[in-house]
Amino acid sequence: MNSTPLSTTEGWGRLAALYRGELLNNVIPFWIEHGLDAERGGILTSLDRDGAILDTDKSVWFQGRAAWMFATLYNTVEPRAEWLQAARSCVEFSQRHGFAPDGKMYFTVTRDGRPLRMRRYAYSEAFAAIANAAYAKAAGDARAAEDAVKTFAAYLRYSFTPGATPPKYEPTRPAKSLAPLMICIATAQELRAHLGDANISGRSCTEWIDASIAEIERDFLKPELQTLMEVVAPDGAVIDHLEGRALNPGHALECAWFVMREGARRGDRKLVQLGATILDWMWARGWDEEYGGLFYFRDVFGKPVQEYWHDMKFWWPHTEAIIATLLAWKLTGATKYARWRQLVHDWSFNHFPDAEFGEWYGYLHRDGSVSQRAKGNVYKGPFHLPRMLWYGSRILSEPNPAEGGFDAW
Amino acid sequence: MNSTPLSTTEGWGRLAALYRGELLNNVIPFWIEHGLDAERGGILTSLDRDGAILDTDKSVWFQGRAAWMFATLYNTVEPRAEWLQAARSCVEFSQRHGFAPDGKMYFTVTRDGRPLRMRRYAYSEAFAAIANAAYAKAAGDARAAEDAVKTFAAYLRYSFTPGATPPKYEPTRPAKSLAPLMICIATAQELRAHLGDANISGRSCTEWIDASIAEIERDFLKPELQTLMEVVAPDGAVIDHLEGRALNPGHALECAWFVMREGARRGDRKLVQLGATILDWMWARGWDEEYGGLFYFRDVFGKPVQEYWHDMKFWWPHTEAIIATLLAWKLTGATKYARWRQLVHDWSFNHFPDAEFGEWYGYLHRDGSVSQRAKGNVYKGPFHLPRMLWYGSRILSEPNPAEGGFDAW
Repeated sequence: MNSTPLSTTEGWGRLAALYRGELLNNVIPFWIEHGLDAERGGILTSLDRDGAILDTDKSVWFQGRAAWMFATLYNTVEPRAEWLQAARSCVEFSQRHGFAPDGKMYFTVTRDGRPLRMRRYAYSEAFAAIANAAYAKAAGDARAAEDAVKTFAAYLRYSFTPGATPPKYEPTRPAKSLAPLMICIATAQELRAHLGDANISGRSCTEWIDASIAEIERDFLKPELQTLMEVVAPDGAVIDHLEGRALNPGHALECAWFVMREGARRGDRKLVQLGATILDWMWARGWDEEYGGLFYFRDVFGKPVQEYWHDMKFWWPHTEAIIATLLAWKLTGATKYARWRQLVHDWSFNHFPDAEFGEWYGYLHRDGSVSQRAKGNVYKGPFHLPRMLWYGSRILSEPNPAEGGFDAW
Repeated sequence: MNSTPLSTTEGWGRLAALYRGELLNNVIPFWIEHGLDAERGGILTSLDRDGAILDTDKSVWFQGRAAWMFATLYNTVEPRAEWLQAARSCVEFSQRHGFAPDGKMYFTVTRDGRPLRMRRYAYSEAFAAIANAAYAKAAGDARAAEDAVKTFAAYLRYSFTPGATPPKYEPTRPAKSLAPLMICIATAQELRAHLGDANISGRSCTEWIDASIAEIERDFLKPELQTLMEVVAPDGAVIDHLEGRALNPGHALECAWFVMREGARRGDRKLVQLGATILDWMWARGWDEEYGGLFYFRDVFGKPVQEYWHDMKFWWPHTEAIIATLLAWKLTGATKYARWRQLVHDWSFNHFPDAEFGEWYGYLHRDGSVSQRAKGNVYKGPFHLPRMLWYGSRILSEPNPAEGGFDAW
């Protein structure tokens, strides 16, 4: 499925229609039909190729992510009762069953909501925050708006208060990760869009975004290495060990578009350029010149990477790369982004979709052959793919940004 | 490199010579030359293809595993000072730097021994126990003999005392794993071989072995499914969720030969048959009929497996399969084991060895192509491969077992 060149408005329109069609006629119906749990509420994501349930355990991340996606479709595509109901079911399941007695959110629970696994970090809280923010707007629900603020505040506390998260390592070699800052940006953007630029834990959403971008630029961006690091020492030094050297190009491309989106909204060309620079460097790091597609991990110095799946092609780095290249092209007009967009779009649509049962495979070998046929698990569900189809079609449908702001919501 | 058919004594001899030659002229020299840390003591295992250091962090598992291997060569091949010195260096590094203030052993430490990571489980203790047992015999070192008993006792306490290991999951769905029982068998066998059948934590080594085998047979072996489970409920019930259904054929084949070895030592045909049955079932589960080699994970009901590397070919399931098929053939004479031995030997020697720099690659794609070129990391070092070459050459050199015991040490 090779896409039409987009040098014309007609081309943009065709691509927007393709994304919208895949979103509304394929991906979302797959999850509504097979994932929503009519029996116990919330959503099941561990689904086989044909939608059969592989595991009834529920991902708390996905109660939030799915609720956000359904509420966002309701808010921005059309007010379908089915979507609002799906969002409500996930929000309510999460609200009822997602929290441990100490207030921290679980990672997984059983189908009927009994706790299975708590993890150190607090991404369940961040995804609950965006779910509640979008659902608050969709349903006009004041309690959801409060819950969005509360869960984001909890996310910030667990992620950025020294000692609030149990350490994985001994204090010998302190380190910090890109992920909490990235998720802070995306979560704050979402809360601001729906609840206004509220003060949360002492800073406005915009201030949280500014602080996160500043820290990323200061400590994770390495112009001398032309890379964005995933993990660095507290002062930003490169940690020259296996885990410190591991780059995650798809993750960095996701960061790139969070930053470009912020630049677009503010009409801030410097921010757009920062995001585009991350895209430039991490595309060079991640794109597989031999087989196409994006590697999962790369060593910053080209050494072997320890994680076994380093050269596999996962669906989500590709959806993030599609958004990043599309947004960069829209915002800068540089033709290299059009070329990269075409490359990653074509590779993705040639390898990930399941023509027979719909949705995308998640896990391919380096050469693009399917490694594992399931459509979901605790990490894959209605989020990265439908978010790309939804956001991609919006980017393509918005007028080109002129001097002023471009709010891609 | 296809091996000679072994229908003749000459064939057995040639294979024994091949294994011994690979062990002494290739694999052990690689680790002595590149891994031993002349500067700080102990051994480095994160080595690139050519032996260059990829990461100076030290695996505490491998201080024990390497010390065991070097001391075992000293005890059973010939008393080379170089091997005793290598064993001593690893034992002493581990003794000085492997223990946290509360007495539990770390998982990784820095090159100079500062703590990096503590893990929930206690395999560092089990590997320290076999290291100290073999080193005690090699060096006539009474303190090492005491340390072997102490670390095995600690392993038993952390592994089998309810509540002694921090839980990974909430109490909603209790589970237990095959691994602690398997490692209990192998560790107790090693201590018994070098220190006699000592009483440790209330049971003799043989009683720990008996209890472990009994629990494996009762709760993990499923004749109705023709499989050995990796994880079950406390009462042995199959946990019908992704993690509960995941089989690890290579791990089960390792268990199979621990049990067959025990049967051989005792002249107990029932134990030999139990190990051979595990081999039969898990060979059928794990062997890749399309590309050859052994899958890493398989779902007990043939459903998709969640772990990304499920269909990769790792070196260690192959070395364990070589030992298991060789031992089963030696002990039962059944020709299917000769056929399987040949299959897994040929596939392994055709795909894993690095003809240019020596040793074996560790991580191949399903089709046998190299995924990652490094020779070691915190999980790969001088253990599974040299143990197979050493133990394989011993099995091939021992007289065939008659009615009486066959002590393959």
